[in-house]
Amino acid sequence: MKKVAVLGAGSWGTALSIVLADNGHDVRLWTHRKEQADKINTTHKNEHYLEIMIPERIRAYADMQEAIQDTDVILLVVPTKAIREVSQQLNTILTGNPTIIHATKGIEPGTLKRVSQMMDEEMDKVKYEDIVVLSGPSHAEEVGLRQPTTVTVASINEEQAKIAQDTFFNEVFRVYTSNDVIGIELGGALKNIIALGAGISDGLGYGDNAKAALITRGLAEITRLGTYLGANPLSFLGLPGVGDLIVTCTSVHSRNWRAGNLLGKGKSLEEVLNQMGMVVEGVRTAEAAYQFAEQEDIEMPITHGIYEIIHHQKKPKEVVEQLMNRSKREEMDDLATLLKNRYAR
Amino acid sequence: MKKVAVLGAGSWGTALSIVLADNGHDVRLWTHRKEQADKINTTHKNEHYLEIMIPERIRAYADMQEAIQDTDVILLVVPTKAIREVSQQLNTILTGNPTIIHATKGIEPGTLKRVSQMMDEEMDKVKYEDIVVLSGPSHAEEVGLRQPTTVTVASINEEQAKIAQDTFFNEVFRVYTSNDVIGIELGGALKNIIALGAGISDGLGYGDNAKAALITRGLAEITRLGTYLGANPLSFLGLPGVGDLIVTCTSVHSRNWRAGNLLGKGKSLEEVLNQMGMVVEGVRTAEAAYQFAEQEDIEMPITHGIYEIIHHQKKPKEVVEQLMNRSKREEMDDLATLLKNRYAR
Repeated sequence: MKKVAVLGAGSWGTALSIVLADNGHDVRLWTHRKEQADKINTTHKNEHYLEIMIPERIRAYADMQEAIQDTDVILLVVPTKAIREVSQQLNTILTGNPTIIHATKGIEPGTLKRVSQMMDEEMDKVKYEDIVVLSGPSHAEEVGLRQPTTVTVASINEEQAKIAQDTFFNEVFRVYTSNDVIGIELGGALKNIIALGAGISDGLGYGDNAKAALITRGLAEITRLGTYLGANPLSFLGLPGVGDLIVTCTSVHSRNWRAGNLLGKGKSLEEVLNQMGMVVEGVRTAEAAYQFAEQEDIEMPITHGIYEIIHHQKKPKEVVEQLMNRSKREEMDDLATLLKNRYAR
Repeated sequence: MKKVAVLGAGSWGTALSIVLADNGHDVRLWTHRKEQADKINTTHKNEHYLEIMIPERIRAYADMQEAIQDTDVILLVVPTKAIREVSQQLNTILTGNPTIIHATKGIEPGTLKRVSQMMDEEMDKVKYEDIVVLSGPSHAEEVGLRQPTTVTVASINEEQAKIAQDTFFNEVFRVYTSNDVIGIELGGALKNIIALGAGISDGLGYGDNAKAALITRGLAEITRLGTYLGANPLSFLGLPGVGDLIVTCTSVHSRNWRAGNLLGKGKSLEEVLNQMGMVVEGVRTAEAAYQFAEQEDIEMPITHGIYEIIHHQKKPKEVVEQLMNRSKREEMDDLATLLKNRYAR
């Protein structure tokens, strides 16, 4: 049994807390909102986020210091835009050498920094090499219901990845390890762009053939960017890449798909975000990826199209038609080049 | 305008005939059943297969010789088990040098031969190098409705692939070329095994997380077999691989998914096949792949599990649990080895 603090009580933080509680750990779930903590402790539910009973061994805290006291493992799972602030706060009160894991899927607009890079910059008490990322095809709702789920944990420090694996692994929550932190983080983040695209396609009334083509071309596109940024292209073909892409693009559970769907039906970005009332990571990620791809001259036609829809009110139908009308050429040329460059040494 | 004969008037043959007719070609749709040909010519519908009006420029024939007279292109799109017989028949009456394309997704049980290999063995008038395969994520229903669709055509003879591309290419039906005949054929065939598995998972009531994991691991598994058989592993990551896998595993249009779904709900193979009343290629493909994997000692746990469900009445739930409980290990090890072997020369 370990003492584990989960920082962030959204849907995913709550679902992962349930996995940890099922594994017999002492789980402290931190939220910055005191009334949310109180409500969880009295009702054992986390309304609005996850409609499921929370085991009583999960205790909610609004005081971070109390929550992280003597913990063996600390899991950060807050929205990307809160990562720096929460990391700073954690750094000021951190003692001991707990394993530090994060399960946040996003990148920073402007800098294109990954979550572990932001954490590293804000925490001098934690070494970058030791940070673990947890990612994979995993709707929080299903994890909460103990539906079979597989994820990957990655760290440069193999030992830390193994600790994370042991902490989460159980009968229905299967955990693989990897050392490709960059690939696992970028797979989870960039796939949200393609999920927006899949939602747009569905919102426009296109069928499964069009969506499958978009997902496939999207996979090649985010693999291209990821590899440029130092990822192992193979990570994009595993659970945190193609697996997560499939789950996010083909399920109505997915926020990013839902946001894209509303965009495809003609709503503006503002209307969509108002209607959702939750963070839609893909919007910020698309912006970040678009800017970087422009700057570095990386071919990302789908990301470019989505950016145009979001920020320049371009008609979704026009964008899809442009994507379809790109010139004939051989499939998979780019990916072949990427893999050749990687292995032909 | 070309003269094109389409041999096989099932859903896919009919849908592809519509693409060809839209492109202005003279299309002859052959079926071995005279009453079906007559009905198509009088009602311009192909009931039971595709609920859509068929353009009048498509003429149905029950006489193959009439259908192939003076054609520039002949497309075979019959069930795998009819490929040899139809090829033999074609060979006896073939004149001239038409482009020969097939769009049949399957492999031969026992021999594990691909469709183009069977065609080659039965037709001395056609060179293996010249045969073109057409494959990709493409529900016939959506193609018939002119929904955007992308496919790949592959041939060892680049010129023949280009002719096929030009013949089919239009605004909503986008065609890429490839030279990996083996990969494109095997991607389309083997993905049906995984579609059965996805259907079983859904039939058992598991969620999207489990299905995404199964699809991802399944992709690695069929890539492993395909590469062993000489395919370029990259083909499995393109439209005829992951794209087709997505469309087949996540759509209720898919016969193989539907068959798997019924198996997952506890029906026997016999009941399922009776209820479907159409060819379910995945069943024969799973059998073929299982036998070959056993013989050559290739690791295919999902295929193995499906074989056990189909032929040994093993409980689907038991099989899925066994798959989930395989030992912890690093993700993507095998695929990395495959790609390394390919490129590190």
